[in-house]
Amino acid sequence: MLHTDCSIDATLSLVGDRWALLVLRDVFRGVHRFSDICADLGIARNILADRLDRLVAAGILAKVPYQERPLRHEYRLTAKGRDLSPALVALMRWGDRWAMSGDAPTVLVHDRCGTELEQVLRCPACDVAVTPTHIRSRHPA
Amino acid sequence: MLHTDCSIDATLSLVGDRWALLVLRDVFRGVHRFSDICADLGIARNILADRLDRLVAAGILAKVPYQERPLRHEYRLTAKGRDLSPALVALMRWGDRWAMSGDAPTVLVHDRCGTELEQVLRCPACDVAVTPTHIRSRHPA
Repeated sequence: MLHTDCSIDATLSLVGDRWALLVLRDVFRGVHRFSDICADLGIARNILADRLDRLVAAGILAKVPYQERPLRHEYRLTAKGRDLSPALVALMRWGDRWAMSGDAPTVLVHDRCGTELEQVLRCPACDVAVTPTHIRSRHPA
Repeated sequence: MLHTDCSIDATLSLVGDRWALLVLRDVFRGVHRFSDICADLGIARNILADRLDRLVAAGILAKVPYQERPLRHEYRLTAKGRDLSPALVALMRWGDRWAMSGDAPTVLVHDRCGTELEQVLRCPACDVAVTPTHIRSRHPA
């Protein structure tokens, strides 16, 4: 049986689908409308409609009117959706390193100095980046 | 068409499958053998065999003998596989916050002080955690 207490499993049950993640990637990049996402991904309209409906039902995207006559909607990230940013960043960085040939197509940099950013686990109390050997798991009783 | 220059897409083509990610989660947790993963996930043997074969072919897992007579193998993370850790951490943390009811079942803490860790983007030059408004994308020519 699947672990009902596993957060990775709970997350994947909502966004563990390649099309769902690609749709989210588009919305993060500013592609908000059905026809634009459809053209950008080359996805079948029925599959896109299904994934958008599920992401709205999960509270990850919100369907927002942008035109009255005729009524038209676009898709915006909710707070819950925006909080997926570290997961998409992690997937992108891994792909840069391991799944692409040549240079990383997009690099995230610090606006002040242009240095490429690192994704790390940080201890807010000690104010240090924590290396894997100093990470522990705690399971509440 | 899909963006052939997108690292997220390249990553998802390798691990963008719920079963593949759950198999990896098990291996990260120390479950290395076919029968143990099978029992832990409640996954059909043919599906598990398919996902393990793909992860080995992608260089994410290595099939390593642990017994000679009869010959038996177990599955170990390669460097490429271990580097998926930030992505799994990000998916877990999002699930803790948004997909679970009640307390997070597993919390990652600093071994020295027990403080819960944050996943951040850090500038190694300025030695600071960079907030979203100070992140820029750079696209090489």
